[in-house]
Amino acid sequence: MSKVVCDISISADGYSAGHNQTEEQPFGDGDMSMLHAWMFDTPEENRAELKAITNAKAFVMGRNMFGPIRGEWSGDWKGWWGPEPPYHAPVFVLTHYPRAPVAMAGGTTFHFVTDGIEAAVARARAVPGAGDIAVAGGASTVNQSLAAGLLDELRLHIAPFTLGAGTRVFDGVPPLKLEQVASRATSLVTHVTYRIVKAGLPD
Amino acid sequence: MSKVVCDISISADGYSAGHNQTEEQPFGDGDMSMLHAWMFDTPEENRAELKAITNAKAFVMGRNMFGPIRGEWSGDWKGWWGPEPPYHAPVFVLTHYPRAPVAMAGGTTFHFVTDGIEAAVARARAVPGAGDIAVAGGASTVNQSLAAGLLDELRLHIAPFTLGAGTRVFDGVPPLKLEQVASRATSLVTHVTYRIVKAGLPD
Repeated sequence: MSKVVCDISISADGYSAGHNQTEEQPFGDGDMSMLHAWMFDTPEENRAELKAITNAKAFVMGRNMFGPIRGEWSGDWKGWWGPEPPYHAPVFVLTHYPRAPVAMAGGTTFHFVTDGIEAAVARARAVPGAGDIAVAGGASTVNQSLAAGLLDELRLHIAPFTLGAGTRVFDGVPPLKLEQVASRATSLVTHVTYRIVKAGLPD
Repeated sequence: MSKVVCDISISADGYSAGHNQTEEQPFGDGDMSMLHAWMFDTPEENRAELKAITNAKAFVMGRNMFGPIRGEWSGDWKGWWGPEPPYHAPVFVLTHYPRAPVAMAGGTTFHFVTDGIEAAVARARAVPGAGDIAVAGGASTVNQSLAAGLLDELRLHIAPFTLGAGTRVFDGVPPLKLEQVASRATSLVTHVTYRIVKAGLPD
């Protein structure tokens, strides 16, 4: 059966984004220059981890990860990634507001799911073919998937800075038993992979 | 000049202890069995990091790390470590309540400092001889030292579990620039050493 995995870059104090996201500031308030420096400044060192991020047959993401729009859909927002997003697969976007699917170049189609994280993961599982399901973020969506016992593997990419405020991985999630299945550092990041030990979590 | 260093074991969500510390429960509420499992179950794998923890000429610690007593001193509490604590050096304990120094076997003497973290670090620096100053914990004391710009190096030992509540490293500390100077994993822990980049912090 497909695993449900999640990659997320965080500060040393656990934040994946600051408050007050806007179109100009996708990661919100604060100096976020270090959050993804490992990806952009040292891609060769981190080739395996970068490749793993988009190695899934389907993706689930929160609305803030998809865009800065709140409330009813308006305009023609198609994500932060330009005409050919890096997913090349169906992406199920959590939202309270229905919207018709948006097909992009390269095989990415954004589907809008209004009935919650469990339904979104179920739709991702139902995508034909082999491969994992990836919860792509942000932290709120990751935390929903953790709290619901949906996640099998969490891959934290811990960057060398602290943010002090924002949206944080694990906030509001009941205590978890984890198994450290991999941990490796490169110049600008420590990659830690945890298997979520599900005993005691909701089915 | 001596560096001011800090070793602290934390959960993946950043906690070093739960709430409600007591003499029977030095790390407070919650299942803390994984926090120090790396020390006790796999000491051989972690020999270098274990040795580094007590490799200082003087130590600074918070009152909760020294003991469960609150308010005025009473009884004859001499720390959690028995007659011969592992420090073998002066230990400056932050407290609001004066107390005469307590000399232990093996060279550890507990001194009680009532004028704050800066004074405690200054007294530790003034100890004769070469060697680093270690801020031994807990998180509140670590955070005070970070916020005051006193810490040069923070060594996090990240254990595979989440706690969900308690005292957390970095809470209340302004955003920090860090340099990841070392990162290494063993079976039950990821050790990450950060140099604190002090530009912009108080002198």
